[in-house]
Amino acid sequence: MHVRIINPNTSSSMTRSIGVAARAAASPSTVVTAVEPSMGPASIESHFEEALAVPGLLERISEGERDGVDAYVIACFGDPGLDAARELASGPVIGIAEAAFHAASFVARRFGVVTTLERTTGRARELVDRYGFRPACTEVRACEIAVLDLDDPASEARRVVADECRAVLAGGAEAVVLGCAGMADLCHDLSAELGVPVVDGVGAATAFAESLVRLRLRTSPRGEYAPPPAKEITGLLRPFSLAGASA
Amino acid sequence: MHVRIINPNTSSSMTRSIGVAARAAASPSTVVTAVEPSMGPASIESHFEEALAVPGLLERISEGERDGVDAYVIACFGDPGLDAARELASGPVIGIAEAAFHAASFVARRFGVVTTLERTTGRARELVDRYGFRPACTEVRACEIAVLDLDDPASEARRVVADECRAVLAGGAEAVVLGCAGMADLCHDLSAELGVPVVDGVGAATAFAESLVRLRLRTSPRGEYAPPPAKEITGLLRPFSLAGASA
Amino acid sequence: MHVRIINPNTSSSMTRSIGVAARAAASPSTVVTAVEPSMGPASIESHFEEALAVPGLLERISEGERDGVDAYVIACFGDPGLDAARELASGPVIGIAEAAFHAASFVARRFGVVTTLERTTGRARELVDRYGFRPACTEVRACEIAVLDLDDPASEARRVVADECRAVLAGGAEAVVLGCAGMADLCHDLSAELGVPVVDGVGAATAFAESLVRLRLRTSPRGEYAPPPAKEITGLLRPFSLAGASA
Amino acid sequence: MHVRIINPNTSSSMTRSIGVAARAAASPSTVVTAVEPSMGPASIESHFEEALAVPGLLERISEGERDGVDAYVIACFGDPGLDAARELASGPVIGIAEAAFHAASFVARRFGVVTTLERTTGRARELVDRYGFRPACTEVRACEIAVLDLDDPASEARRVVADECRAVLAGGAEAVVLGCAGMADLCHDLSAELGVPVVDGVGAATAFAESLVRLRLRTSPRGEYAPPPAKEITGLLRPFSLAGASA
Amino acid sequence: MHVRIINPNTSSSMTRSIGVAARAAASPSTVVTAVEPSMGPASIESHFEEALAVPGLLERISEGERDGVDAYVIACFGDPGLDAARELASGPVIGIAEAAFHAASFVARRFGVVTTLERTTGRARELVDRYGFRPACTEVRACEIAVLDLDDPASEARRVVADECRAVLAGGAEAVVLGCAGMADLCHDLSAELGVPVVDGVGAATAFAESLVRLRLRTSPRGEYAPPPAKEITGLLRPFSLAGASA
Amino acid sequence: MHVRIINPNTSSSMTRSIGVAARAAASPSTVVTAVEPSMGPASIESHFEEALAVPGLLERISEGERDGVDAYVIACFGDPGLDAARELASGPVIGIAEAAFHAASFVARRFGVVTTLERTTGRARELVDRYGFRPACTEVRACEIAVLDLDDPASEARRVVADECRAVLAGGAEAVVLGCAGMADLCHDLSAELGVPVVDGVGAATAFAESLVRLRLRTSPRGEYAPPPAKEITGLLRPFSLAGASA
Repeated sequence: MHVRIINPNTSSSMTRSIGVAARAAASPSTVVTAVEPSMGPASIESHFEEALAVPGLLERISEGERDGVDAYVIACFGDPGLDAARELASGPVIGIAEAAFHAASFVARRFGVVTTLERTTGRARELVDRYGFRPACTEVRACEIAVLDLDDPASEARRVVADECRAVLAGGAEAVVLGCAGMADLCHDLSAELGVPVVDGVGAATAFAESLVRLRLRTSPRGEYAPPPAKEITGLLRPFSLAGASA
Repeated sequence: MHVRIINPNTSSSMTRSIGVAARAAASPSTVVTAVEPSMGPASIESHFEEALAVPGLLERISEGERDGVDAYVIACFGDPGLDAARELASGPVIGIAEAAFHAASFVARRFGVVTTLERTTGRARELVDRYGFRPACTEVRACEIAVLDLDDPASEARRVVADECRAVLAGGAEAVVLGCAGMADLCHDLSAELGVPVVDGVGAATAFAESLVRLRLRTSPRGEYAPPPAKEITGLLRPFSLAGASA
Repeated sequence: MHVRIINPNTSSSMTRSIGVAARAAASPSTVVTAVEPSMGPASIESHFEEALAVPGLLERISEGERDGVDAYVIACFGDPGLDAARELASGPVIGIAEAAFHAASFVARRFGVVTTLERTTGRARELVDRYGFRPACTEVRACEIAVLDLDDPASEARRVVADECRAVLAGGAEAVVLGCAGMADLCHDLSAELGVPVVDGVGAATAFAESLVRLRLRTSPRGEYAPPPAKEITGLLRPFSLAGASA
Repeated sequence: MHVRIINPNTSSSMTRSIGVAARAAASPSTVVTAVEPSMGPASIESHFEEALAVPGLLERISEGERDGVDAYVIACFGDPGLDAARELASGPVIGIAEAAFHAASFVARRFGVVTTLERTTGRARELVDRYGFRPACTEVRACEIAVLDLDDPASEARRVVADECRAVLAGGAEAVVLGCAGMADLCHDLSAELGVPVVDGVGAATAFAESLVRLRLRTSPRGEYAPPPAKEITGLLRPFSLAGASA
Repeated sequence: MHVRIINPNTSSSMTRSIGVAARAAASPSTVVTAVEPSMGPASIESHFEEALAVPGLLERISEGERDGVDAYVIACFGDPGLDAARELASGPVIGIAEAAFHAASFVARRFGVVTTLERTTGRARELVDRYGFRPACTEVRACEIAVLDLDDPASEARRVVADECRAVLAGGAEAVVLGCAGMADLCHDLSAELGVPVVDGVGAATAFAESLVRLRLRTSPRGEYAPPPAKEITGLLRPFSLAGASA
Repeated sequence: MHVRIINPNTSSSMTRSIGVAARAAASPSTVVTAVEPSMGPASIESHFEEALAVPGLLERISEGERDGVDAYVIACFGDPGLDAARELASGPVIGIAEAAFHAASFVARRFGVVTTLERTTGRARELVDRYGFRPACTEVRACEIAVLDLDDPASEARRVVADECRAVLAGGAEAVVLGCAGMADLCHDLSAELGVPVVDGVGAATAFAESLVRLRLRTSPRGEYAPPPAKEITGLLRPFSLAGASA
């Protein structure tokens, strides 16, 4: 069995650490490969960056189909491109946000989310709603650490994340979901420190993807996720400058 | 790793077929044991029977704790005793209804449920709501076959279930959840016949339970699922006659 | 008319005080009897205890049917066994949580709940949701007093409960629901002290049960609450030791 | 104890039959009086008519306060003026729609509503939502009989209403709510004929209002339902001609 | 094009300032007229006052139909009489609460509401729910300034409202809705001061009403908003004294 | 004032007809320009195509910012890239699905949607939910006409769409939303034919965008829609072949 983890940003160091977390969650006999797109933003902290990351992510899905991949994980907490990826892939595709929410709901009645920047909490809440976890999710808290600063060994990231986890527990949560693929390596230590389940979506999505393959469950070819119609797609998608927009 | 499947009714032939379905979904290296309670009803098709099945089910959880079981599956579609079992067990406990809903939501946008008797559809809808799948679930349909008649080889159970699955698809569902542990063996054939994912909760719960153990996720000891307080419990719980009630 | 109040725990002193509260809410011509099960836990503060309390509670319903009881009240704020009881009884059955929520919604737009232990608030919130009162319920607060300590005259229970009621009002509630049958006797004093409606579910359920009898409304025999099918129920339900689980 | 039933339309024959239904639901010792406003429309089948009925209804509440009335019932299925009436009255005020929904939810898991004209079903659905019964209510069906034609002995009203009740049951409901005060007298016969609970809101509201008085529960004086501020109200409210609007 | 703004209270100075705000939001070529009823309360801060304001408001709609008005705005944040007005008018009718919520949702993911008295927040929350903005609305805050004190130049109204807006932003809102027609003139200054969109419903409703006319969209004559049936309406609606009620 | 309509697909004939519909809805003094991206799919009927359309759409927003555009309309019923566009643009951005839902809710209590292919109804329902219109939307129906076949004069598109509109009305809707920018030109004829409001999102979004500019409301710069952080975006986004995926 071959599960492919797609890091939707172009940071290859992050791809490596995501691969480590995914492999730790898979059965020894499962092949786990981790890739990133050849184009797009170095990290995803806005809807704009998510939009520019998705075409490259879908290219990796398309490649995976040629490689005979059995299942995919989209390793960014906004679950970017999930619906489109399901249309392209014949095997199952799981996002790490949905996987983390599902896993947390198996081990706690109510969970909170600790994520990176405040500006991304709207997307996290939207996913909580879409997947049906509004009653289960006590809150979404930002630690205001940028994605790429999470693994800066000199940073205080781990301490700040732990503090936000404690705040989430004080607010009534019984478990914590880590809201960024870049936090995957903190998961087991935080769980030991806090004495509650701390859920990393990368591991959860990998294990669940493997489960679906073993259960012989593939994305339904009927209705919304049917393969897209054959159609001409033209032009080059250039990641244009934002000078005009953010000025 | 040891996953224990608990059939909450006292039908040992059903326990055997549930065990087969569970083992097929687990990794080869995982030990899967299937048990039933020593007391309670032969099948569960009412709230009354569910209530009388739960103490025996919890006794099996308690035994499992002594046996060092790593995770449990409750193999009845009403997820009876799930909250209580989570208080008793140190490892994760998963119900087959919740597992089936979660699995279906990974491979389809909208799914329908085909279950046994009309009178049980209220409980199924309640679980759909509790777990957050109301927008995802198109309907809950009964095939009006009693639980213990499902594996009668002379019955038309398979054909009737297939017809109800087709009705669910015609109503807009993209996948089907089978709403009874006794339907587990129909899952792969129906999926092939209908061309859509058909989800059996026994397999799904077994695979997800294994996933949680591998992810080192246990039920939160904080808040609602903390071990119950030490307390005197007195008397014998006699499964009394219903003569007065149903007359 | 005969209304039977069932205290689902085995504490007979609590049965007595519940009976007093129920009688105060009934018409003088109505016979009110209060009973407790012969088996089960001394108080209910966990899902486990609730599960072990229900068979004994159902036995009391079954007896009530032989005695010609017209309506039943289940006097524990988790409304344990309510669905099963409705299957057994020919007359109406009301839980004190649902009754309290309904009564509060008649006299206030938003109410809060003050209950016993934090670990029981999840069940209270689940009932708020199930009965449709999520928009009406501002919060569920625990006073961290165990059920059986509520009527310890030496305890500070009354003061602590009053403080929590005040906190609920400060949070925007216009009325308070007392979340335990053991708080029934505090109801009128607290209402006078706080100047807002304070709702005790025992009284409310008794009055509503009597209302339903007068309205000639019985549980629907159609669908979910139809009498359970005749079926063999075997074995003795032994309230087993929790040594293994809670160790 | 004195419970006053207010028929919000000016049809005195309807007031009489509502009074009969209310008295049948009250304890013998309770005084039940039924009144109608001195101004307003002869029946309420539009938002416009509801708006013009409310001032006269509120005048009757104000009179009731001078008369020492203990509780009020608003006997029109749109629950017109309920919030305003709660501000004016010191005792509880109950609408017949809310009372019927609450009563139905005590005796069935899912109920349907049979009301008069299609154009009023939107208001009924709005009330179902406001009171939290959306999951419990299967549908709202119109029988297309105008309010004042309901008690025409020559009409086929009873047969048509019974047919719509059957349609509601065929759609999955386990009980029926009658959606007009003018249907109160059909309630017991329909229940006997259909074999399920058929709920009339006039009776239910009367019994619940009496219950609240016995429980010493009054509308909360805190927050939304506090008495309105003293304020100048000027002019005469003339029920103007609709010639311009409906032409 | 002629858009008529109806101030539902009888304060003519408020009508004038509402007219100014409406004209500022309309196209130069659109005729905007602002009127108040000839009867009713001087301001609306309770359900009771709202009920007494609606007949006079509907009279103004009826007059507007004779005058050939193209669209109407109801300029009170409780959207009083909106459904009834839609039945009477052939052109569209928009309430300022709904308009403000819709406008805010176009420019922010989450908004908060700052309104006048705490006692009116229940109605505001009810409208948030009815119009579907519960997930978008972070909170409804009262500034405890009465409607008619808002434009007292000696008052600290502007400062207090600004402080409450800041509190709303601190709670996670990205925009603010002003919850009273009497706050319309504060809108642009507050927006400049706070650096976020501050939405006044009077302007928003006027612009949207004009939009609907240009889009040739009128209230549907089918179903709930069909013209009300011809019917006798009798009596004089006298705005009675509240002496009995509030004493 | 300059409002720019962005057709997210690369079909320039569709851009032209969208421009005509937008201009008809705008004030005479407003400049309306309609553009399409230089890259992407010829029409959008899948999540995959939507994903590949968004980068080109965002490039048009970025250009618009350099051109001093005051407001934008995204003219595809899936509202693709709406959140990202709001981050880039300083003026407001409105999607045609949201605009159509909002407009319909101003003129009818319940509306239905008629869209193109069944496979797109899931996205439409998701938007109905996200924008809060679930209680208002009776159903989403597909007419199974592909986007680019809508304006084929030889096709029966108009008749088929009219038939689906009638089905929506028969199901209880009081107005119809047309679920594709390519249906804009059918709007007024269908409304005349059916006698109910028929809402085209292109016109509605244009009028509302103009309204927001006149109200001086811009997307909140605080929180979720703040301009995206400066960040390196690398690589060329090539619209790759789907041979592997759809084979």
